[in-house]
Amino acid sequence: MITGEKALTTPTNTPLPSIAILGGTGKEGPGLALRWATAGYRIIIGSRQAEKAQATAAELNARLGINTIQGMENSQAARTADLCVLTVLQDAHRDIIENLKADLIGKILVDTTARVEFQAPKPPAPPSAARLAQTKLGPDVRVVAAFQNVPANLLKKNLGQTIEVDVLVCADDPQAAQEVIQLSTAAGMSAYYAGGLDNSVVVEGVTSILFSLNKHYGGDAAVRITGLGN
Amino acid sequence: MITGEKALTTPTNTPLPSIAILGGTGKEGPGLALRWATAGYRIIIGSRQAEKAQATAAELNARLGINTIQGMENSQAARTADLCVLTVLQDAHRDIIENLKADLIGKILVDTTARVEFQAPKPPAPPSAARLAQTKLGPDVRVVAAFQNVPANLLKKNLGQTIEVDVLVCADDPQAAQEVIQLSTAAGMSAYYAGGLDNSVVVEGVTSILFSLNKHYGGDAAVRITGLGN
Repeated sequence: MITGEKALTTPTNTPLPSIAILGGTGKEGPGLALRWATAGYRIIIGSRQAEKAQATAAELNARLGINTIQGMENSQAARTADLCVLTVLQDAHRDIIENLKADLIGKILVDTTARVEFQAPKPPAPPSAARLAQTKLGPDVRVVAAFQNVPANLLKKNLGQTIEVDVLVCADDPQAAQEVIQLSTAAGMSAYYAGGLDNSVVVEGVTSILFSLNKHYGGDAAVRITGLGN
Repeated sequence: MITGEKALTTPTNTPLPSIAILGGTGKEGPGLALRWATAGYRIIIGSRQAEKAQATAAELNARLGINTIQGMENSQAARTADLCVLTVLQDAHRDIIENLKADLIGKILVDTTARVEFQAPKPPAPPSAARLAQTKLGPDVRVVAAFQNVPANLLKKNLGQTIEVDVLVCADDPQAAQEVIQLSTAAGMSAYYAGGLDNSVVVEGVTSILFSLNKHYGGDAAVRITGLGN
């Protein structure tokens, strides 16, 4: 049984893992970086160009009044961190997975990819992006799918406060899922273990639903889960 | 622009459509029937056997203290009603669509099918059940996908009160979607237009997520939408 965290808490008795945010100079990565850095995690921004990563790191440090966020080329970032979060654009997903295979060995890779176009949203075909990643990376990397549906602009404001979004965490390894549930909680979002990696194609597809809702009703639609026993 | 209904309302100036609930003797159909009958809709329970449909209709009438719910063989039910709702088990989906094609001409067919097994939940492959239905039925029937994620046991209790479930309504015809949004509201659930019929494969797949959540956390998980502009 995996329990969802409901409040803004971080583990207290173990050192926090360092987190590399690969492709972390886009929309989603900096928001997650800000929230995790605020919660005390050591953050490394990764990018194809070290200079670009360092520029984003400097911006984030300036916003938070800290100097602990680093910027590195993706491969070095992956090797340096305890845990990696992939926030590249969907078109770059395949290449970065292939390029970083050796760097990710022994680590958890959190895949945030949702293969949905904003202009013409439609559900992606299975297998899920995270399953594709797991297949390419093999059993030495534990892939966890999460954060595909989190509106980037909600991450960047009101740091330290909770966000009205529930994160659906899919993984074949429940222990890895539990670590990502803790990360989600640390970033201010409730999170739930939503089954194996194949389920994450649905979570990707939910992005298509949310884009459709936003087009018709305006706003930043997000999903919450109700009715659970605890 | 399609607007979501937030309260328990029904259209006031037009007569309510009669509703056939095809395959309506299972788990989901009677719950919807009870709620719509409570809201004043004329309900016809359909089944492969007229006697079985009549027995269910009699049970529902007895519960509500009315005698207006009828039971008929599916084909007759479809022809008699203004609008049809399909609540068959997934294995029966294909056959009933083929068998009722002529009876459904000119009508809206609401497809509630989620092709997910409770014991081994996994996302269904596209195309969605509703898209398959639309393709088989052709342009003379307007298929709307809805109610795939509504826990049946929530429908049957506290009739007349709202349910903490949001219904994602997918249809290629926005006007047909709007009619189903009104039906959902009448049954006590908020509903939103979530894009075209192809999006409904995601809504089916959400059932796989909800089954996974129920297994880990207990309860009757359901989805709510937050963050919309209105």
